[in-house]
Amino acid sequence: MAQPDTARLLIACDDQPGIVAAVAGLLAAHGANIISLDQHSTDAEGGRFFQRTVFHREGLAAHRPALEADLAGIAERFGMQWSLHDASKRKRVAIFVSKYDHCLMELLWRTQRGQLDIDVTMVISNHPDLAEAVRSFGVPFVHIPAGDKAEMERRQLELLQGNVDLVVLARYMQILTDAFIEALDAPVINIHHSFLPAFIGANPYARAKERGVKLIGATAHYATADLDEGPIIEQDVTRVTHSESAAELQSRGADVERLVLARAVQWHAEDRVIVHGRSTVIL
Amino acid sequence: MAQPDTARLLIACDDQPGIVAAVAGLLAAHGANIISLDQHSTDAEGGRFFQRTVFHREGLAAHRPALEADLAGIAERFGMQWSLHDASKRKRVAIFVSKYDHCLMELLWRTQRGQLDIDVTMVISNHPDLAEAVRSFGVPFVHIPAGDKAEMERRQLELLQGNVDLVVLARYMQILTDAFIEALDAPVINIHHSFLPAFIGANPYARAKERGVKLIGATAHYATADLDEGPIIEQDVTRVTHSESAAELQSRGADVERLVLARAVQWHAEDRVIVHGRSTVIL
Amino acid sequence: MAQPDTARLLIACDDQPGIVAAVAGLLAAHGANIISLDQHSTDAEGGRFFQRTVFHREGLAAHRPALEADLAGIAERFGMQWSLHDASKRKRVAIFVSKYDHCLMELLWRTQRGQLDIDVTMVISNHPDLAEAVRSFGVPFVHIPAGDKAEMERRQLELLQGNVDLVVLARYMQILTDAFIEALDAPVINIHHSFLPAFIGANPYARAKERGVKLIGATAHYATADLDEGPIIEQDVTRVTHSESAAELQSRGADVERLVLARAVQWHAEDRVIVHGRSTVIL
Amino acid sequence: MAQPDTARLLIACDDQPGIVAAVAGLLAAHGANIISLDQHSTDAEGGRFFQRTVFHREGLAAHRPALEADLAGIAERFGMQWSLHDASKRKRVAIFVSKYDHCLMELLWRTQRGQLDIDVTMVISNHPDLAEAVRSFGVPFVHIPAGDKAEMERRQLELLQGNVDLVVLARYMQILTDAFIEALDAPVINIHHSFLPAFIGANPYARAKERGVKLIGATAHYATADLDEGPIIEQDVTRVTHSESAAELQSRGADVERLVLARAVQWHAEDRVIVHGRSTVIL
Repeated sequence: MAQPDTARLLIACDDQPGIVAAVAGLLAAHGANIISLDQHSTDAEGGRFFQRTVFHREGLAAHRPALEADLAGIAERFGMQWSLHDASKRKRVAIFVSKYDHCLMELLWRTQRGQLDIDVTMVISNHPDLAEAVRSFGVPFVHIPAGDKAEMERRQLELLQGNVDLVVLARYMQILTDAFIEALDAPVINIHHSFLPAFIGANPYARAKERGVKLIGATAHYATADLDEGPIIEQDVTRVTHSESAAELQSRGADVERLVLARAVQWHAEDRVIVHGRSTVIL
Repeated sequence: MAQPDTARLLIACDDQPGIVAAVAGLLAAHGANIISLDQHSTDAEGGRFFQRTVFHREGLAAHRPALEADLAGIAERFGMQWSLHDASKRKRVAIFVSKYDHCLMELLWRTQRGQLDIDVTMVISNHPDLAEAVRSFGVPFVHIPAGDKAEMERRQLELLQGNVDLVVLARYMQILTDAFIEALDAPVINIHHSFLPAFIGANPYARAKERGVKLIGATAHYATADLDEGPIIEQDVTRVTHSESAAELQSRGADVERLVLARAVQWHAEDRVIVHGRSTVIL
Repeated sequence: MAQPDTARLLIACDDQPGIVAAVAGLLAAHGANIISLDQHSTDAEGGRFFQRTVFHREGLAAHRPALEADLAGIAERFGMQWSLHDASKRKRVAIFVSKYDHCLMELLWRTQRGQLDIDVTMVISNHPDLAEAVRSFGVPFVHIPAGDKAEMERRQLELLQGNVDLVVLARYMQILTDAFIEALDAPVINIHHSFLPAFIGANPYARAKERGVKLIGATAHYATADLDEGPIIEQDVTRVTHSESAAELQSRGADVERLVLARAVQWHAEDRVIVHGRSTVIL
Repeated sequence: MAQPDTARLLIACDDQPGIVAAVAGLLAAHGANIISLDQHSTDAEGGRFFQRTVFHREGLAAHRPALEADLAGIAERFGMQWSLHDASKRKRVAIFVSKYDHCLMELLWRTQRGQLDIDVTMVISNHPDLAEAVRSFGVPFVHIPAGDKAEMERRQLELLQGNVDLVVLARYMQILTDAFIEALDAPVINIHHSFLPAFIGANPYARAKERGVKLIGATAHYATADLDEGPIIEQDVTRVTHSESAAELQSRGADVERLVLARAVQWHAEDRVIVHGRSTVIL
């Protein structure tokens, strides 16, 4: 899936006339061919503008400095935030896991099959249980037991800093501190086992059973200090009935969790997700 | 859809051996032919047992007292709650509405087409706006404006008591008092415009937009004193994206609301719904 | 929903570098602000390129000739097919119907509520049954009974030519001749009551029951000479079980039909649909 | 999930009064407690009756002959087909596979996790590729290359006869002969990579792309001589757009295939599926 000489440009700025033309014109002037362009404007007065542009440019690596210099000029003019991503390089991903293996295995398995455009460079767990399963995929497994929180996170950061572009919490049952998230300096995607904002917090399946809901779901979101409140990337649900026990809801829900998390990670890997306040724009 | 000489028997009791055999045997002894039988046992130790049995018995009306006498005997033995419903008689339904017409129109239209097995005997509204639309279906429309709450509910009860088997709140924007629900002595079904328990309370679509959810939904439930906490009968969702405004979510959600409410009312009309604590069993 | 001084530009051509930039640059030069831009390239070598651009230009009507002249220049250069649609004018729609009313009523009702951005200028039927229902919406109903096919279509064309931008077959049970479709010179959208290409032809619900499928569906497509083979605009399905009779499948399917048709008509009304061979691109 | 002293009784016969009572009475007389009972009557005159009854009976193994003798009596009286399944014994399953691994891995993985109530006793493939992946689950892998068809099937039957209760074709790309299916004397479940009866035969994803459908699906069915015509057990679909290539449809479809096949195998494992002509009843 790696695409040579191809890049993805993400921009966000206040909505104003001429943005699409300016960016498309600059790319044309630099000999780049636009493969796809998606944009979104929030409809309110004084709204925000978001755009994802994928383009091909022969000899991109050598030409990139010149292109970035001109992009910086446009960005200044329009007050843009922007980032340019090399589509020929897969993102380096660390997966955090505890004992539930279904989300982890889905990610490893899709990556191995070439269905998920990432490199899983390590799996970190507070339990030793899944070491063998992970290593059978040729992926390093590091056991960092829970205990002194500060020490635990210090060891995690040592492994992660500079080595990963994304951390995925695949049903990791430990809370990350604000300090950790800040020090990490890479996005973190978490899977929550409910259709947020329903059943925020612990034991969502038991509470779904108790409340008698007719659908159960899962939510993949960027992790922020306030764990279940981060920007939602993807959600889905499945229909259940009174005849299913809380344990069966959990088993049914596991299938939703792994598909929702896989979609969210793939969209992030393709640079499709832009955070906008508490929500996301998927381009 | 009215089925002559056909009845539906609902029972609920503590789970124990021999219930199915006892009921089936009694019905056979009374010359009744079981058309369908659905049962459900909660899986916990000391669980509850629920059963819905539809049967046909030639000359049911004349024979009913004898059958009920024997059923009372079995009910005593097993500690059963039970109710016997004549499938040849449609339930009489009053619909409460304010200004949004989509749920009301769906119910009227399905009833007219023979897709909803109820008789709509009156529509009560705190606004005069929908009078003509309702009367074009040949259904009486009564305008009881908001104002003194006690007086308003007194007039409503005057119309309802003894005249209806079910009240449906089809986006009725007034809160019913506990006293009203108690005095009414008929079940009340409400449609809430969110996937409960997400977005309990007012303005769910605006809050769904603000939270950036990827699915919006609707919930039909029995109304209880605590409005959004009643037993859920049916729920559904539809997928939305960042590109839809709160107004568009509302419009998309309206389609979910009317289908969810129509299904819930139809299941109630067919005596398929048994309340179990805060949840429901749909048989 | 009518948007003053706003237009939608649809283009299709062979994929080649510089199209987005050329169009965006031309619009900027004409003082137009791009509200949204969606494009799609088929991935094959020598693929096709499709783009929908919505833009706002103060005083559009007066300025349109100058804009179109320049667009024609670009179109010549890139070998483009293009069309420019005034977003301030709703499309004029004729609905054809026979006896089933559910699709017709859904369209009339949504239009009345402002959820469907069309003007229904007439309903034509080969049966008189629905005259009153249609006229209650203030829409003319014309009864043209089946009989001599050529005479029937001559009368229909007399009403339609020059008066409509779209014809919708809302479960119209007569076959249109090729000659009619050609003479009409306006697109025709049909709703088929199955998930095409399953159950092409007559009686899909009975055949779905006989085949024991677990989902039933509906398909909205542009009508072509080969009736069930036209480009598909939208499809959806709903889950069914063994316990539902063919009549119940038909009733369940009717709900899918009306939502699928409403979505397809709305997308067409918003100039979102471009035909590409036997399929469609929805932008 | 194995349930000691528990059995599942499946019956099918012409619809007639008294069946439920007779079976429930017999079980009660034998000291069995009904855990669940589901029945279905086809609604046509002279219809068929189907029932699945799960019951618990202390010391079932020793008591089974006496119970079966009395069941045979009832079966004679009502003209019933019946089968009694020991819920404490998992079915022995052989999986046939070629090169696509996604359906195979899903079954192995769910079985290992205790989410699928079967014993996978062997995997047979016409390619050697998946040997290691299969054996890592502790499951024997047998490579029987394609070549002389009669010889190939002779070797397969040698392995299977008497050793398996079910064969699952998990994207097995060879056609089974009628003679093989007859000699096997065990049911065969196949997964077809389309929403049957759409795209019967080869290359469904390419044809779905060509036809421009908006949903793609998968179908699990019992294999019969006429491969894509066997009774359907389960189907599902997922939404796709014009922007997805045939290869992406195949990847998206693979996720539907594995969930649909897993559900179908689980339902069969729980003795929930009764074949009725070309369709199935799921109880």
